[in-house]
Amino acid sequence: MKPIEGRRRVIIEEIQPQVDAGRYPAKRILGDTVTVTAAIFTDGHDHIASRVLYRPSTEAEFRTVPLTALTNDLWQATFLLDQMGDWLFTVEAWVDHFATWCADLKKRIAAQSSPGAPLQDIPIALRTGAILLEKTAERAQPLHTQLLLGAAGDLNRLAQSTTPIQGFPLADEIINLATQHPNTTFATRYPKELPIWVDRERARYSTWYELFPRSTSPDPARSGTFADVQALLPTIATMGFDVLYMPPIHPIGDAFRKGRNNSTTPSPGDPGSPWAIGSKLGGHKAINPDLGSLADFDALVAAASVHNIELALDIAFQCSPDHPWVKEHPEWFLARPDGTIQYAENPPKKYQDIYPLNFESTHWRGLWQALYDVFVYWIRRNIRIFRVDNPHTKALPFWEWCLAEIHKKYPDVLFLAEAFTRPHVMYSLAKAGFSQSYTYFTWRNTGAELQEYFEEITRPPISDFFRPNLWPNTPDILHATLQNGGRPAFMQRFILAATLGANYGIYGPAFELGENLPLKAGSEEYLNSEKYEVRHWDRTAPHSIAPLVTQVNRIRCENAALQSNDSLHFHPADNPNILCYSKTHGDNRILVAINLDPTQEQAGWIELDLKQLALPYHQDFEIEDLLTGTHYQWHDRSNYVALRPDIQPAHIFRILTSAPSPEATPPEKSSPPPPPLPEQWPSG
Amino acid sequence: MKPIEGRRRVIIEEIQPQVDAGRYPAKRILGDTVTVTAAIFTDGHDHIASRVLYRPSTEAEFRTVPLTALTNDLWQATFLLDQMGDWLFTVEAWVDHFATWCADLKKRIAAQSSPGAPLQDIPIALRTGAILLEKTAERAQPLHTQLLLGAAGDLNRLAQSTTPIQGFPLADEIINLATQHPNTTFATRYPKELPIWVDRERARYSTWYELFPRSTSPDPARSGTFADVQALLPTIATMGFDVLYMPPIHPIGDAFRKGRNNSTTPSPGDPGSPWAIGSKLGGHKAINPDLGSLADFDALVAAASVHNIELALDIAFQCSPDHPWVKEHPEWFLARPDGTIQYAENPPKKYQDIYPLNFESTHWRGLWQALYDVFVYWIRRNIRIFRVDNPHTKALPFWEWCLAEIHKKYPDVLFLAEAFTRPHVMYSLAKAGFSQSYTYFTWRNTGAELQEYFEEITRPPISDFFRPNLWPNTPDILHATLQNGGRPAFMQRFILAATLGANYGIYGPAFELGENLPLKAGSEEYLNSEKYEVRHWDRTAPHSIAPLVTQVNRIRCENAALQSNDSLHFHPADNPNILCYSKTHGDNRILVAINLDPTQEQAGWIELDLKQLALPYHQDFEIEDLLTGTHYQWHDRSNYVALRPDIQPAHIFRILTSAPSPEATPPEKSSPPPPPLPEQWPSG
Repeated sequence: MKPIEGRRRVIIEEIQPQVDAGRYPAKRILGDTVTVTAAIFTDGHDHIASRVLYRPSTEAEFRTVPLTALTNDLWQATFLLDQMGDWLFTVEAWVDHFATWCADLKKRIAAQSSPGAPLQDIPIALRTGAILLEKTAERAQPLHTQLLLGAAGDLNRLAQSTTPIQGFPLADEIINLATQHPNTTFATRYPKELPIWVDRERARYSTWYELFPRSTSPDPARSGTFADVQALLPTIATMGFDVLYMPPIHPIGDAFRKGRNNSTTPSPGDPGSPWAIGSKLGGHKAINPDLGSLADFDALVAAASVHNIELALDIAFQCSPDHPWVKEHPEWFLARPDGTIQYAENPPKKYQDIYPLNFESTHWRGLWQALYDVFVYWIRRNIRIFRVDNPHTKALPFWEWCLAEIHKKYPDVLFLAEAFTRPHVMYSLAKAGFSQSYTYFTWRNTGAELQEYFEEITRPPISDFFRPNLWPNTPDILHATLQNGGRPAFMQRFILAATLGANYGIYGPAFELGENLPLKAGSEEYLNSEKYEVRHWDRTAPHSIAPLVTQVNRIRCENAALQSNDSLHFHPADNPNILCYSKTHGDNRILVAINLDPTQEQAGWIELDLKQLALPYHQDFEIEDLLTGTHYQWHDRSNYVALRPDIQPAHIFRILTSAPSPEATPPEKSSPPPPPLPEQWPSG
Repeated sequence: MKPIEGRRRVIIEEIQPQVDAGRYPAKRILGDTVTVTAAIFTDGHDHIASRVLYRPSTEAEFRTVPLTALTNDLWQATFLLDQMGDWLFTVEAWVDHFATWCADLKKRIAAQSSPGAPLQDIPIALRTGAILLEKTAERAQPLHTQLLLGAAGDLNRLAQSTTPIQGFPLADEIINLATQHPNTTFATRYPKELPIWVDRERARYSTWYELFPRSTSPDPARSGTFADVQALLPTIATMGFDVLYMPPIHPIGDAFRKGRNNSTTPSPGDPGSPWAIGSKLGGHKAINPDLGSLADFDALVAAASVHNIELALDIAFQCSPDHPWVKEHPEWFLARPDGTIQYAENPPKKYQDIYPLNFESTHWRGLWQALYDVFVYWIRRNIRIFRVDNPHTKALPFWEWCLAEIHKKYPDVLFLAEAFTRPHVMYSLAKAGFSQSYTYFTWRNTGAELQEYFEEITRPPISDFFRPNLWPNTPDILHATLQNGGRPAFMQRFILAATLGANYGIYGPAFELGENLPLKAGSEEYLNSEKYEVRHWDRTAPHSIAPLVTQVNRIRCENAALQSNDSLHFHPADNPNILCYSKTHGDNRILVAINLDPTQEQAGWIELDLKQLALPYHQDFEIEDLLTGTHYQWHDRSNYVALRPDIQPAHIFRILTSAPSPEATPPEKSSPPPPPLPEQWPSG
């Protein structure tokens, strides 16, 4: 069957950005300029023109921007994302007969005088141009119509002349007018509108601090409260954090409560795990009275915002046997043949303090709604960031629906996916709408591992939907590197997290105080984990690396290069214990060289990719180590570093020498030219 | 808005093969086994199962085949393409509760006896299993229902027992029955049916010979006819060709007829270019009477088929000013302002003997139909292969429609796209339905150029839709390599074409006779080109490389490895003038080492990828040069070759040593394992 319109001769392919052929949105940040590329071409030798059509989904009308040709049929345009939320874009392209005519006429004029060239039929070409301008005039505003018709008349008069014409017979003004009023009757429009999701800036650049509120009491005799957390806010703000994340704050179940060190035989007074959510005092919308009242919570949120700190709540969709839902909505849980509710288990392990929700429930609609309502409840209490616990154990279609529903009303809400699982599942959660994701960073320790992993996650296609948030530790994960590496290991892993990732977080004060004892050999669980007991910390201990944390967070704040990941670039070093990488943003260029070995000094030569750093070849340049204030004069590609893990495990250099002006930059290696083309049109 | 069914928990992504997200079909050959891969996963720890649904588009019912798990959530299945034409496939996957139950029960049983393990609730688990089997019984045929219910009863009885159970309590027969009757109520089906186009084998493996019929006369006093071509068929068949391609056979226009060497001032009696199609004697459905009658044509087609040769016609959709369409359908051409018809031009060049068709004609529907009818006319005269001239100067949507329409009725028709233009346009034509495509082979001459280009076009994604047909020369292209390289260059380029490409062709007898004079220096046009005059050739000349052609075509015929491109693999050589590559098909392994320098002997060490050749490490193996019959004993990876371009420009080895049995092969390097996973479910 023939198409409705067979004269749409232009083909549009390979549009970027797109995630899974437009199934999911590409993610960007408010104020970003999106670069759209596409392959656009038509048959034959006609010129083409094209434009991007783009709009926030809340607007009916498309805005437009023309694409410009790169090489080999690739085209490019950029546009600004000036509001949060869903955007849509597509590409439209058409044969540009006016541009073809202009180009051909120039060749005809050039050939008029070359001996032996055939007669160029210039009068006919001029009359053709006049017809094109007359048709353009029909599409133009009255203001321009006369100009275009006048130019058409000029061409027709010129066509009567018998002398060769001199120069191109149209003024730039007329050419521009004609270009602005293209004939798009037979324009091809790409059949899909591709989605972009635009978050606020904290989705890309955020600095997280996790603490257990019950461990914040300055009084060893009692457990901490929201008020104690509030008292800590100046400290946390001074350290440079802008997201304060608390494990679940809800009432904790009594049934099968876990004791210290995950014991199944708790002592009286053991507080239980905050992830065993729900008791007779309430569930996911209630507050554990040990922490304070709802008013205390509101006060904490308000006080935090004064310090530019946002509170992030932990949403863990699971229930203690005492959770009200268990009685009110038994249909949301899986019943066993004996009528009891199926607790969480992964044979032979049993977690009888936790009832998972059954996403295959006949009443899934009500369940989905209730979970959605949990988020909205806290959003209405001014929470805009959620760390979601184990989202990969809940149905993926639920997340896609739930996050989209929330984002429709609250586009500024951010979700961090706490999933440590296989790559496809982690990426699928990010596609489903999570704003940030935990990563494998904790288990990537050698330079080669780090480089391979970060090159994967900071480049398209992954970086179009997956935003890493790097954690050197969490309450669940005390990696062997930290267990064995002492204070240098904490400094190294911290610097890596804070400079490789524009989003990172630490679980403190265990982290900055160097807590490194595992539950048992080979385990990544903490001994005396705060998950099961109240702890009291001495934040003023002299071995704390809080000063380093404070300093690096200030460096992050002052250097835009460290506030995104797109420019991350690794530079080779001749010592595998040294990892060197840079991030750039305009003239702000940060170069990190870090010793990955916590046990001894490592030194070596690093080979800088000068082009990446916008540095001239074979010349001196000046850098400043932002950790020490020391200035260095470096030269050309190869430079030497020596790093003692206990004193200074890393350099964080800022390049002070200005980037050369664009014309001084060595020419970029361009795409290969198209293959040589024989004279092939037409055969014969 | 919630989905209609929220309990479809499985995600299906990254299905292969697919071209542009299913916009175009992936191409395969009748009898091929398609390998489908997909990423398939769900939330949590449940097991999943999946199947490919596939069917020829002419059948309503899907056939099915289960996918099996590879690593990291990738799954794979294969199915046979047992008929030509359009196929569709998709993937369906679901949570397999029975498989999850089996796996869990095994772990529970194993844990029963381990000291300290929690009680495993095995009776409950057995009762759960019984319920699963009872539900399975509802989906089974009556024959199996009783078996399944019986097994369920056994589990229930066992659940009453107080002694630990020994071994897994279900027979394999029951497990198989349950697996064959899965609960697919909440199955996810990939939302697209992905197309595959299945051609007959000659689309993948064909050997083309092009000749001008008017140059086949044995009598220098007259020009050649179909009868003369017919007389040549035994010669062409003996040389090993199975497609005989003739430039256009239609009446040639008189207006602006070109003379010898493309002169615009022809002499009387100059026959004109066959591509200037149409005269008062007819157009694209007529035959140039100088070549014979329609009956002669039919006789030629019939005689060719006796020799297993198919005739390929040249379809050039352009018209001489004398073509009947010019008068009958002036609306299919572009009128100039003076009322004349726009001839082909690419300023400053003019081709006044050619009127291009206007694909923006208001009457495009009639034009499309007429062009379609041209193909069908010749198809009805038993032509099944068309070489399409300059398809890239006709609207791409036309080709997509036209080829699909023809393929619906005649799935055995093959189309070769003669487009030498930019990569996107060439690939777009292949996606639009062309079965084979001319390539840049002619302009790829160094080893590095050849390797880069062939690695691009013989691997997915390109090889899923683009099938190269390699031509060392054409009537339009006499490359400098042939102009300057003498007989060795012809042998080299021929062997490259015939072994790098399962489809290749030569334009003869100019090629095998070494015709190498250009029209002028720097031109790729032939001097005294057959495009503009009748030639007479001495096919028996002693310098002809026809014996080599015959020999290599026989080698292609006897070695399945050379009949497809998928296995093409390059092996490094320490001399850039030597190119080494292999193709394999089962135990048939062909290794080519060729000297690319036509001027002198080149020698060097080649480093074989033994794994690719299924050869053991550190051992001797035997090879035979199929060009000379010489046997060699080679050893391990590094082996030496020396090739004299005039005598033996290449080895075409067959590896005689049997491939080791699969278990003796060194283990394949598998995908990296998933990252280490902390115990993360559930938190707390």
